[in-house]
Amino acid sequence: MTYSTEFTVRFGEIDPARVVYYPRFFHYFHQAFESWFENALGVPYGKVLEDHNIGFPSVHVETDFKRPLRYGEKVRIDIDLLEIGKRSITVRYTAVRLPDGEVSAVSTIKTAAIRNDTFKSVDIPDDWRERFEKFKSGQK
Amino acid sequence: MTYSTEFTVRFGEIDPARVVYYPRFFHYFHQAFESWFENALGVPYGKVLEDHNIGFPSVHVETDFKRPLRYGEKVRIDIDLLEIGKRSITVRYTAVRLPDGEVSAVSTIKTAAIRNDTFKSVDIPDDWRERFEKFKSGQK
Amino acid sequence: MTYSTEFTVRFGEIDPARVVYYPRFFHYFHQAFESWFENALGVPYGKVLEDHNIGFPSVHVETDFKRPLRYGEKVRIDIDLLEIGKRSITVRYTAVRLPDGEVSAVSTIKTAAIRNDTFKSVDIPDDWRERFEKFKSGQK
Amino acid sequence: MTYSTEFTVRFGEIDPARVVYYPRFFHYFHQAFESWFENALGVPYGKVLEDHNIGFPSVHVETDFKRPLRYGEKVRIDIDLLEIGKRSITVRYTAVRLPDGEVSAVSTIKTAAIRNDTFKSVDIPDDWRERFEKFKSGQK
Repeated sequence: MTYSTEFTVRFGEIDPARVVYYPRFFHYFHQAFESWFENALGVPYGKVLEDHNIGFPSVHVETDFKRPLRYGEKVRIDIDLLEIGKRSITVRYTAVRLPDGEVSAVSTIKTAAIRNDTFKSVDIPDDWRERFEKFKSGQK
Repeated sequence: MTYSTEFTVRFGEIDPARVVYYPRFFHYFHQAFESWFENALGVPYGKVLEDHNIGFPSVHVETDFKRPLRYGEKVRIDIDLLEIGKRSITVRYTAVRLPDGEVSAVSTIKTAAIRNDTFKSVDIPDDWRERFEKFKSGQK
Repeated sequence: MTYSTEFTVRFGEIDPARVVYYPRFFHYFHQAFESWFENALGVPYGKVLEDHNIGFPSVHVETDFKRPLRYGEKVRIDIDLLEIGKRSITVRYTAVRLPDGEVSAVSTIKTAAIRNDTFKSVDIPDDWRERFEKFKSGQK
Repeated sequence: MTYSTEFTVRFGEIDPARVVYYPRFFHYFHQAFESWFENALGVPYGKVLEDHNIGFPSVHVETDFKRPLRYGEKVRIDIDLLEIGKRSITVRYTAVRLPDGEVSAVSTIKTAAIRNDTFKSVDIPDDWRERFEKFKSGQK
């Protein structure tokens, strides 16, 4: 299953080369990640941190930037859950320009499971493993 | 006494009109505010929050934008402490382009004193009143 | 007529006091301004700049911050066009927490009309005056 | 030769987990990149874009995040030029916490050479190749 969100490139996101400042792609990906928790996995990310006392900080990132995005363009972020490890998950983010479907960037991000209060690595709790697997099993 | 900090306008701060995106001026002012606590008032702002359990959120802002700033320009922020109230301080920030001294923006920002853990308004503690007055008395 | 947009407070917008970093409110207001152009005035702001060769930079800002916003909260920004001058418009932004309707911040922002290529102040062009007046006449 | 810049983690860069929001590391790296052009390669990046009509957008990024950074911490970014290709350079950024020298993040970023006005890939111009090689030859 692929989870997708859409947005419009905003004025404050452009750099002097007149394209999206590349660090902002990671902000786009994190916003998509938050949206995925809230809308597909069923728990807003704030509740994950506070009530479940776990967090998912990024530990490894690999990204290819293929085409720049410009002011006012519509963008879709596709989220695919590639791997559920013992203590981490690996998610692929694809930024697609709309309506022509050109891929702008692809990023594979591994996030560790940690206890939010101590920042120590932990096994993914069973209820979270189930949520992730349920989502993943929907994928082709 | 005027406290001043300097910096260079960065790539990621420009908007499609090729000038600094105006919300970023408030980020500049806050960074100058943090620098003022650390270098002139003698306590890094992080310690103010954690060890002294007080914070100074902005409650009223008035700003005039006079000239835009462009990529690569050098800027000085001047901080003047205008008023020390019972439960607030009022600070003026002046953004000056270097080396020609043209004023880019002037902002007067009132910040309330609050307990950091409860976010409730409190009287400015005596030790902080002293720090602020010592700084202000240096002003002409 | 009031134009409104809604969004959710994101992870990357929070500061160490666990509330929205106040400069980001101005980013929220600018995003609402862009949405207003696209959805209510009928021209995406990027086209305003490029095809119409005008821009609306902020020249005077007055803001009251009343209640902080926290991670995950839903927010509505209400836009009211207060005044259409010869060479400027004045817009009020009200940030309202949902669903309880508590007002978080109110900002009145005067933006000058300029030629986008020269950054010189100009009279508001007639077609834009009409768009603004049509919007304003809908207001109570 | 390693080029280094230092800065302090600011209030507006922290997320609800009380550490630097990870997309901001890429903003740190870009600021270090700009500082490197201005102070080590001898041309401010703004002049590179405008007068030399070239740009260096990121095309491939690989990053390991090892330890989070917290509010108020001092950080050094070390820049090492790993490779000078025909149409790209590859730079490693190491974010080091001060004063203890703990490595927080390591990122290897390949940037293409492009003409700034057309965004088309170009060979690295000879004068730039020389600047990069002169810098690289200083490396152990």
